[in-house]
Amino acid sequence: MQALTPQLIDFLDAHHVGVLATVDEVAMPRQSVVYYVREEQRLLISTESKRLKARDVRRSGWASLCVLGHERPYPSAVLSAPAEILTESIGPATAAIVQRVAGSPGPPDAQSDEALAAIDRVILAITVEAVTAVNYLPAATEAADS
Amino acid sequence: MQALTPQLIDFLDAHHVGVLATVDEVAMPRQSVVYYVREEQRLLISTESKRLKARDVRRSGWASLCVLGHERPYPSAVLSAPAEILTESIGPATAAIVQRVAGSPGPPDAQSDEALAAIDRVILAITVEAVTAVNYLPAATEAADS
Repeated sequence: MQALTPQLIDFLDAHHVGVLATVDEVAMPRQSVVYYVREEQRLLISTESKRLKARDVRRSGWASLCVLGHERPYPSAVLSAPAEILTESIGPATAAIVQRVAGSPGPPDAQSDEALAAIDRVILAITVEAVTAVNYLPAATEAADS
Repeated sequence: MQALTPQLIDFLDAHHVGVLATVDEVAMPRQSVVYYVREEQRLLISTESKRLKARDVRRSGWASLCVLGHERPYPSAVLSAPAEILTESIGPATAAIVQRVAGSPGPPDAQSDEALAAIDRVILAITVEAVTAVNYLPAATEAADS
């Protein structure tokens, strides 16, 4: 099942950052701003294995990403879904995220998994199974955001 | 103790919306985009008593708000703190938020608590006791974000 509609894909691909929420060790939400890239039905975030957000995902297997536009009416999408920490074949996604962080026209050369492991880099991958809430997307149907 | 520094206050007052995270009934983060106003060391959000975010706060007594800027390097602040649902003396705050939603030059007349109760309006109030994470604020010291 494809949870991400073409409109939502356009919206996600047009933005660079979102607010990630993970579940901390006492089951409270932990938020942080992250760069992401979309790959099919997954949202990929580059982080370090030792970071709290990575530990949260290893422990809970879940994460939520909220992407929002920058002007009224502030279009937004919340994607709350199973998440995991990847360490294999992460070079291209990591390079794509580095490109977004730098705002450069093209991605740097992809590094090997070994090189990324040496600097503690991992990919936090959210697999979108359903769209939690979408609001004010151009031509999209508004969903309850309660 | 004043958790919000003058720089952070400037940043919060210069923005209108943030991403709220509450704890849902199965202890997972629930995110939504909200308008807010700051009042001293509190962040105030207008919502409806029946909304899931209001229920979450009544149950958990906690919420997190992430406010982020719109351009690289995406300055941001995460404020995770005790939260409560207010129903008394909420007219002025509700009017200030309505003004922000509408983008109008001044707030509408404040409604009475009774009038707001009749339309299920409440204020979700976050009392900031400590700043969870601040990144890339102009002239602010960068704090660990995870």
